[in-house]
Amino acid sequence: MARYQIIIAYDGTEFKGFQRQAKARTVQGVLEAALHRIGWQGQLILGAGRTDTGVHAAGQVAGFDIDWEHTPQALQEAINANLPADVAVRQVQPVEADFHPRYDALARRYAYKVLFAASRDPLQERYAWRLWPPVAMEALQVATCILIGTHDFAAFGTPPRAGGSTIRTVYQAEWQANGSNLVFEITANAFLYRMVRRVVYVLVAVAQGRLTIEQIASSMQAGKLEAVPGLAPAHGLSLVEVIYQQEFLEAIQGFQESGRR
Amino acid sequence: MARYQIIIAYDGTEFKGFQRQAKARTVQGVLEAALHRIGWQGQLILGAGRTDTGVHAAGQVAGFDIDWEHTPQALQEAINANLPADVAVRQVQPVEADFHPRYDALARRYAYKVLFAASRDPLQERYAWRLWPPVAMEALQVATCILIGTHDFAAFGTPPRAGGSTIRTVYQAEWQANGSNLVFEITANAFLYRMVRRVVYVLVAVAQGRLTIEQIASSMQAGKLEAVPGLAPAHGLSLVEVIYQQEFLEAIQGFQESGRR
Repeated sequence: MARYQIIIAYDGTEFKGFQRQAKARTVQGVLEAALHRIGWQGQLILGAGRTDTGVHAAGQVAGFDIDWEHTPQALQEAINANLPADVAVRQVQPVEADFHPRYDALARRYAYKVLFAASRDPLQERYAWRLWPPVAMEALQVATCILIGTHDFAAFGTPPRAGGSTIRTVYQAEWQANGSNLVFEITANAFLYRMVRRVVYVLVAVAQGRLTIEQIASSMQAGKLEAVPGLAPAHGLSLVEVIYQQEFLEAIQGFQESGRR
Repeated sequence: MARYQIIIAYDGTEFKGFQRQAKARTVQGVLEAALHRIGWQGQLILGAGRTDTGVHAAGQVAGFDIDWEHTPQALQEAINANLPADVAVRQVQPVEADFHPRYDALARRYAYKVLFAASRDPLQERYAWRLWPPVAMEALQVATCILIGTHDFAAFGTPPRAGGSTIRTVYQAEWQANGSNLVFEITANAFLYRMVRRVVYVLVAVAQGRLTIEQIASSMQAGKLEAVPGLAPAHGLSLVEVIYQQEFLEAIQGFQESGRR
């Protein structure tokens, strides 16, 4: 029996999120079913974190114990052969017996895609939130700065466990444009429930002139964002990466010494 | 009563191609149903050309006559409000009463996406053909040159009407790489049935060393490609644009004077 870490990608459109539910199609559910078909005796795989209904992932992480006498690559192929087309294992590696995808994670990175288009665009909207008219990149980027660093993000979401801390550290958050496509990337030690979608909604509201940066700042202090009770749609969001490398923490030391960027 | 030209985009995954069929879900079928719901009395819209089951489009073109008292933009919105999420009208404009989307077209441009990845990638494979191991861009590009110009393409497809000409002029064909994503773009006056998918399959076969450029050349002369009876999958292909502008023909004069590039 050995523990394996797997990196999973999925198109979230047809999933009711990552975490197993009794009666809904979830990523965890189809993964566990695939593992059972190749002889896995376990009850539950460990996940790095939930994703909401409709949210995608390029780099979700899970872990499980299995008796496997072949190579990790053969394990990957065996699992993939038993998964539906909208989810795939991208990488498999043996890890320490006490590896835990959630507790051992140092940070997570999400990407949120925005598309500027006047009318519906069926070839792009599966993975992006369509907005019209366009908003200025500079306005988005300026408002983004307020998020970077260690703050109480209670205004942006709820903790995984009721009563848990709402303090999180955002290491990096930035917008990149490529024509009419924008990508917002954000890396934090951890995220509150729905935090990224709420953040994107608020940044867009600022760029659209419906909210000021001062309002965000005071809402963050007050711990609630009543002014903008919205949420960017799930289908623009994807979990890019869960970070475990010690090198990441070392790079972060540099970040902390230099303070907020 | 006036004639309108519309530009249509669709995700072909759930369509049995563009052209209406009695019992299958087609793009033409859902478009005509949407038009009927806004008061259109016609029987058949005119399309610029068919696309196969599973092929996407960013710029398919259709035309129809309608009594419409509001703006073209209002017409676009009315049609879009009656279309499913995987198809949308991107542009509407009034045209001459004798405009025909197919007969008036000067050229068509298609794009074919290839993805190099060792294992399945659910976030990219909806719109790209996954290949592994990667092949050299140079090999693809060199083999592509043989297509450019006016040739009998009987080896690459069948004409829309039995017994029709198989001579076509390819104005432009090239590969562009962006990391592990490749896009093949090809512009011709018209295409044979399945020509682009067959061309992509053959170019990849050359790059993989399964076929030589000499074999393609002699197969083109013989009018059949028995050596490689394959077809690149439909889901990598998309109809980018149908070209009607006279400026395009003028640019082509320059192309013809300079001969094959």
